[in-house]
Amino acid sequence: MAKTQKYVYFFGGKKAEGKADMKALLGGKGANLAEMVNIGLPVPAGFTITTEVCTYYYKNNHKYPKELKAQVLNALKKVEKEMGAVFGDPKNPLLVSVRSGARASMPGMMDTILNLGLNDVTVQGLIEKTNNPRFAYDSYRRFVQMYGDVVLGLKPKDKHEHDPFEVIIENKKHSKGVKLDTELTADDLKELVQEFKTAIKEKTGHDFPDDPMEQLWGAIGAVFGSWMNERAIVYRKLNNIPEWWGTAVNVQSMVFGNMGEDSGTGVAFTRDPATGENVFYGEYLFNAQGEDVVAGIRTPHPISELAKENPALYKQLDNIRKILEKHYKDMMDIEFTIQQGKLWMLQCRVGKRTGFAAIKMAVDMVKERLISKEEAILRIEPNQLNQLLRPIFDSEEKKKAVESGRLIAKGLNAGPGAASGKVALSAQDAEEMAKNGDKVILVRIETSPEDIKGMNAAEGILTARGGMTSHAALVARQMGKVCVAGCGALKINYADRSISVEGRDDVYIKEGDYISIDGSTGEVILGKLETKPSEVIQVLITKTLDPKDSPTFQTYNSLMNWADSIRRLKVRTNADQPDQASNAIAFGAEGIGLCRTEHMFFGENRIMSVRKMIVADTVEERKAALSELLPLQREDFEGIFRVMKGYPVTIRTLDPPLHEFLPHTEKEINELAQALGISYQTLKAKIDSLHEFNPMLGFRGCRLGVLYPEITEMQARAIIEAAINVMNEGVKVKPEIMIPLVGHVNEFKLQEDIVRRVADEVMKEKGKKIDYLVGTMIELPRAAVTADEIATRAEFFSFGTNDLTQTTFGLSRDDAGKFLPLYVQQEILPADPFETIDQQGVGKLVEMGTKLGRSSRPNLKVGICGEHGGEPASVEFCHRTGLDYVSCSPFRVPIARLAAARAVLNERTTKTTKSKVAAKPKAKSAGKTKAKAKKKSTK
Amino acid sequence: MAKTQKYVYFFGGKKAEGKADMKALLGGKGANLAEMVNIGLPVPAGFTITTEVCTYYYKNNHKYPKELKAQVLNALKKVEKEMGAVFGDPKNPLLVSVRSGARASMPGMMDTILNLGLNDVTVQGLIEKTNNPRFAYDSYRRFVQMYGDVVLGLKPKDKHEHDPFEVIIENKKHSKGVKLDTELTADDLKELVQEFKTAIKEKTGHDFPDDPMEQLWGAIGAVFGSWMNERAIVYRKLNNIPEWWGTAVNVQSMVFGNMGEDSGTGVAFTRDPATGENVFYGEYLFNAQGEDVVAGIRTPHPISELAKENPALYKQLDNIRKILEKHYKDMMDIEFTIQQGKLWMLQCRVGKRTGFAAIKMAVDMVKERLISKEEAILRIEPNQLNQLLRPIFDSEEKKKAVESGRLIAKGLNAGPGAASGKVALSAQDAEEMAKNGDKVILVRIETSPEDIKGMNAAEGILTARGGMTSHAALVARQMGKVCVAGCGALKINYADRSISVEGRDDVYIKEGDYISIDGSTGEVILGKLETKPSEVIQVLITKTLDPKDSPTFQTYNSLMNWADSIRRLKVRTNADQPDQASNAIAFGAEGIGLCRTEHMFFGENRIMSVRKMIVADTVEERKAALSELLPLQREDFEGIFRVMKGYPVTIRTLDPPLHEFLPHTEKEINELAQALGISYQTLKAKIDSLHEFNPMLGFRGCRLGVLYPEITEMQARAIIEAAINVMNEGVKVKPEIMIPLVGHVNEFKLQEDIVRRVADEVMKEKGKKIDYLVGTMIELPRAAVTADEIATRAEFFSFGTNDLTQTTFGLSRDDAGKFLPLYVQQEILPADPFETIDQQGVGKLVEMGTKLGRSSRPNLKVGICGEHGGEPASVEFCHRTGLDYVSCSPFRVPIARLAAARAVLNERTTKTTKSKVAAKPKAKSAGKTKAKAKKKSTK
Repeated sequence: MAKTQKYVYFFGGKKAEGKADMKALLGGKGANLAEMVNIGLPVPAGFTITTEVCTYYYKNNHKYPKELKAQVLNALKKVEKEMGAVFGDPKNPLLVSVRSGARASMPGMMDTILNLGLNDVTVQGLIEKTNNPRFAYDSYRRFVQMYGDVVLGLKPKDKHEHDPFEVIIENKKHSKGVKLDTELTADDLKELVQEFKTAIKEKTGHDFPDDPMEQLWGAIGAVFGSWMNERAIVYRKLNNIPEWWGTAVNVQSMVFGNMGEDSGTGVAFTRDPATGENVFYGEYLFNAQGEDVVAGIRTPHPISELAKENPALYKQLDNIRKILEKHYKDMMDIEFTIQQGKLWMLQCRVGKRTGFAAIKMAVDMVKERLISKEEAILRIEPNQLNQLLRPIFDSEEKKKAVESGRLIAKGLNAGPGAASGKVALSAQDAEEMAKNGDKVILVRIETSPEDIKGMNAAEGILTARGGMTSHAALVARQMGKVCVAGCGALKINYADRSISVEGRDDVYIKEGDYISIDGSTGEVILGKLETKPSEVIQVLITKTLDPKDSPTFQTYNSLMNWADSIRRLKVRTNADQPDQASNAIAFGAEGIGLCRTEHMFFGENRIMSVRKMIVADTVEERKAALSELLPLQREDFEGIFRVMKGYPVTIRTLDPPLHEFLPHTEKEINELAQALGISYQTLKAKIDSLHEFNPMLGFRGCRLGVLYPEITEMQARAIIEAAINVMNEGVKVKPEIMIPLVGHVNEFKLQEDIVRRVADEVMKEKGKKIDYLVGTMIELPRAAVTADEIATRAEFFSFGTNDLTQTTFGLSRDDAGKFLPLYVQQEILPADPFETIDQQGVGKLVEMGTKLGRSSRPNLKVGICGEHGGEPASVEFCHRTGLDYVSCSPFRVPIARLAAARAVLNERTTKTTKSKVAAKPKAKSAGKTKAKAKKKSTK
Repeated sequence: MAKTQKYVYFFGGKKAEGKADMKALLGGKGANLAEMVNIGLPVPAGFTITTEVCTYYYKNNHKYPKELKAQVLNALKKVEKEMGAVFGDPKNPLLVSVRSGARASMPGMMDTILNLGLNDVTVQGLIEKTNNPRFAYDSYRRFVQMYGDVVLGLKPKDKHEHDPFEVIIENKKHSKGVKLDTELTADDLKELVQEFKTAIKEKTGHDFPDDPMEQLWGAIGAVFGSWMNERAIVYRKLNNIPEWWGTAVNVQSMVFGNMGEDSGTGVAFTRDPATGENVFYGEYLFNAQGEDVVAGIRTPHPISELAKENPALYKQLDNIRKILEKHYKDMMDIEFTIQQGKLWMLQCRVGKRTGFAAIKMAVDMVKERLISKEEAILRIEPNQLNQLLRPIFDSEEKKKAVESGRLIAKGLNAGPGAASGKVALSAQDAEEMAKNGDKVILVRIETSPEDIKGMNAAEGILTARGGMTSHAALVARQMGKVCVAGCGALKINYADRSISVEGRDDVYIKEGDYISIDGSTGEVILGKLETKPSEVIQVLITKTLDPKDSPTFQTYNSLMNWADSIRRLKVRTNADQPDQASNAIAFGAEGIGLCRTEHMFFGENRIMSVRKMIVADTVEERKAALSELLPLQREDFEGIFRVMKGYPVTIRTLDPPLHEFLPHTEKEINELAQALGISYQTLKAKIDSLHEFNPMLGFRGCRLGVLYPEITEMQARAIIEAAINVMNEGVKVKPEIMIPLVGHVNEFKLQEDIVRRVADEVMKEKGKKIDYLVGTMIELPRAAVTADEIATRAEFFSFGTNDLTQTTFGLSRDDAGKFLPLYVQQEILPADPFETIDQQGVGKLVEMGTKLGRSSRPNLKVGICGEHGGEPASVEFCHRTGLDYVSCSPFRVPIARLAAARAVLNERTTKTTKSKVAAKPKAKSAGKTKAKAKKKSTK
């Protein structure tokens, strides 16, 4: 005979029928209440009606399974026995709360009813038990009000209508000549109960049910009903919570913190959720209900005071704190009530925390042997590391500034950290102001490669246009600069050197005025705010702090070591300069994944040669200009090779459209014309002729080297000469030469042939052999789909996912600002594909490219050097796809290291789950297993 | 015991050992010589040494197979017997020619030796046989000269050196005081022979071999050697002829057309290769050698004269002509020699022909029951149809113009046909000049949508910039206009309304001057040339010619009917206007595959409303502007639906970047500002704000409709209202609404929802239901790789391969002019991917998109509407990929119909070949089969 299905789970006393890992069936609240009972904590007895009842209810036209009624009555009996009170008993009534409890927290989305079981008869029992008529009638009044609203539907019809119950209360206070609810007497409250009931009958046509059992079923139905209310539906949609999960219903004995001075209530965290320190952290109030603490009418006391006020109680609570941490192995958020001296636990769940705290707690717990290093790593979102790395505002000072109206606009949080300085509206101004010792915020409509030096001189960069991967954002992150990008409210007027702000007529900023930007939040704040580098930076980069003196650094360092011991993916950095490279190594980079040779072209002593090269009319002229650049490029590479000490260095040959290097002002054009000995007009015409309609899809990448092989020749020579020179100093060197924007294997062949020929020449000249690789970026869809052909020649691939995203989507990141934010906001796209890799589309091409590439060259080295290389979800994708490394800006290296470790751990989990599923495919639980798998995929 | 391998194939008399289908083994020449023998034609006896010997020769260090010598001697014996002469005999010497003969024709690439077998002894025999010492010594002299050059290597060391033999001849003429070779006497020639031999010995160290057998082997070695000469290698590379094919060597008895007035020589085609007419076409000369006809020293006579001069011979030849056509079932190109009254056939091969002739001959031969209609279709390159469709220059007049230096430049042959008219340098000028009754050629640096009306008014369009799919080229082909694009030599000066031409200082063209362009060749010719529409156009479009009166039209029509009976692919057209649509139907279109709604936006009474819509600040303003456009768009669609009479019409919602519609001149901006009641500055700022860095990847396609749903609403309403209105007139209507530039299924969903909602509204308002489809363009790589998701909603796909090519390659067609021509020229890319679809890259995405799309919607209708839809190789690709239809500009419809039929036939051939290969995988011929397959793939 089939066993009757269990729909109701009792908890209370020393034993619960459920436990913590039954969240899917009991909801988070119910599972944790059961768990607390099981570990011996004092929990008011109750029972949980499972989520399966909710599913049944919606599948069967709002009917319950026939077994439910008996199971509820049975559980209620147990509760009565445990609590020593009887539901509906005139003398000793049991009161209960009825609350929803879904698998995932949906705060405030569904309904709750307290004090259920009261009626004109049982209220007398309550008076007798408490000897407190006002408390009893206040409880009764609150119950009727909640029940009338939630179960019987007496509520305002729209936003403009007042709550009908509050209207009655207001009238009552008015007629009694009092101002506060608390001034109403027991009799007043008794009158209110009757008036509420009358209003309910009049306005809804329903009688208020006096029968507690009727009350109970009404409340249960209302809670299940609230699963489908509009708020809940919207919330689920926003948070990807599937409808079929359903909610559980928790029916629990009431305990009261407002039964006098020996009663009270509180909330607490088992550790400090802001700093992560291992101290008991929370607040409490005597003679109060939970909502009093929340409402802020009375100021609660810090939990530390309880140690003095009631040492026994504090000791009991602190003991519970320890039990909970030991049991849950995490920082918990708890709610408790003291009823007439007895402590009851009402709720416990994993506590929310700042990134800083998350890291500290995770690392501390490993050291306390509460959790493993793997668990620690899985608990920290990689981006939370930013909170350890970036310069920071003093939080108090910032709060004051915001409160005084100095927060004038918000942009994209493009480069985390805090920066404060004088506004400079051009790169040149920024450099000059910095030379004078000023801290500078460079504010531009948008930035271009010409602004690099100014960006480097500035503390932070603020732009009015451009997204998360705009030039400003990319370069800022690579430089480790604070950046707020795409702050559209700023109206930057270069002509009169000022900024105004849309919607803020009171604000007018002149160049040289102070401004502060928070690149972690995108906030732009008027005036100056102090900042300081983080301790980790002080240890690793400025080297102004001894690691021994910094617990924060030690925390960071432990975590990173654990991550390194777990991850498979290598982490490289995108760096063009020795100092960037050296920072990246300090952050744990294991090579350079992208060294852009063109960033070196903007140096003072170079740009003229570069321009000469571009406007050259003949091969000879171009070669002459290139020969001026050769020694400079060689020096650049020598510097980088020295710093990288044998780590691989991937150097990309010239990539950007040539017009990016050309002068645009009349003055500069004149200078160049003079240097070249040609007329202004001739040069201007030449510059104009280089104009392109779609430079992104134009004459760039390897197309430059195909048309002008002498450029590739010069760069190959500079790289190989530098490599041999540095090798001769006794330093190991591993150059990897990377050809950009290859679409057809023939382009690669032509460029590779040049590189190999020049390398042979140089090695012969220098009498020394070196190992080097020649590979390519895969940044065009065509390269991805013909990767098998390309890999017949290329020794490595590096996915340039910035450009691959642009071409795969047909989306220019410079122009997408008009519609992309709306696309993300309206969830047309799940996320900004320039921020996290689009796994369904772009990712499919990455997978295809990797697979095809390795089909013709099994040992093909594959990496990624787009900005996605430092974004945790993308790093995880790269791990799953079998890439060898990711490369990202120096300050993202620790994030990538952590993300790579998490990828390994998440993969293990998935595999375990999968193997479990695979192990019992035909077991009775097949249905449930399916449901689990579905849950996974929906997450 | 293994049979000895056969390396030598005899031909002559009534029987040859080879035949026509042995080209791979015997080369084209050898196979056809054998075939002619077999069908009873008089061929001088000889033998062919197979290509396998060539392969052996190169594999075995320039050695021959050991069996070869005996087989050659044996064959030579048969030749001697057949010709009644003996090789090396002093009295009756057999002379032979030794010629190469590869599988594919490689004209002039390899070496030939004539008159072999002569020496001081045999020359006497020749004198006796012919009684003509001068002839004998001239033959001897020629032989020594050729042999010295080809076999013994006495030739000029470089281009600057004179031919050493010619120097000796010049000296001889000088010393004899004569000017022409023909003035040299037998004795002079005899002296020359000795002087040649002395020179050979002195300069090469080799004795000239007197032994005919030594001569023969030397010549055979030289011919095999010439397979690897530099010219031949380059030629093979250019023509994709694999090296391993090798060449055969033909050794054939000499016959002489210069043995007196009863001898002669000639070349002929079995039909007119220019017009295709079924007449004998060729030239002959009596008492002459082949080279005399070619050299042009004497003027040959048309073959028709032979009928009078020597009716018997003519009859014999004409009979051979008939035998050949009946046997080969094709027009043949023949060479013949008459030696002392006897006719000998020296060569026959399939003759080259013009497109016009190819079509006429193929159709005629079907009617003559020589070939099947399938064979006819396979014989015509679809693009050859252009020669039946386009207006044409009188060829004589054009030739004269070119000869007089009026050909001033060449651009891309972007829109076939011929046009002549006055130069207009702006669209407005073009319109005005056309209104005054002038024929106009619109000459622009490049064109934009604003120029549409001017382009329509012009006879032809000539641009200095832009490729085969530039705006000018696309629109021209759609309009059926002649177009030469990307003619970089033109320097167009809008300021002083003139054109100069690079490298032609003598040319200066003012606006209003006459110019002529040939869009089939890209030629630009100064001054006026007369043109006329083709007969097919006169029948189908201008309707000025009765089909009965045009044999050319009937030819066209037969061919098209046959193609239609074979093809599976439907052919639609890209058309925005009723007249275009109606032309397309005349050309056989079966629907519209792409109706661009934005082309309608440039009409005089519309552009202002469009501009109002674009610069609108509020939804209300935008809706007001759109409501002005609604009735106009509805009328457009009504016009098209009426013409299309129930054929499906795919209408694309608004696609281009909005700034394309905005005014750019101060005057226009002022006008619009006044109309809108805003200031010039405000409007200018608005226009500037719409500027994009990469408009191709910017705010366009469905992104417009997502941000401004009211645009899609208006267009959907216009389409459905028009459809119902036309249906109410009793005309069938099949609208297919197409959403452009979809990258994510969510974009499609949003747009589809709007279309369906509006359609429901309109149908309710009108009280009538209509069937319509909603589908999408697949023109982004992301759409192709996520086509399974998109097809859950989209009812049809249309591959927009223009944009798909741009994004897959990361290549802007507007900017690629700088490097793409070089890429094609240097064979980095096999072809311009905008001209013919890149099957390896873009094609892979098309295949993937089709497969994925049909995986979620098996009955998904799939088409292509890029310009590739009318390009034969791309059409064939579409057929193989399983598309339902191609869509192309009206004038390409016949080409696409023919290409679609050829695709079916080629597929049959491939399948037959494959099944044959599959049938005997383990047979002895496996090696050969492989070779065959390889040959296929190399072609």
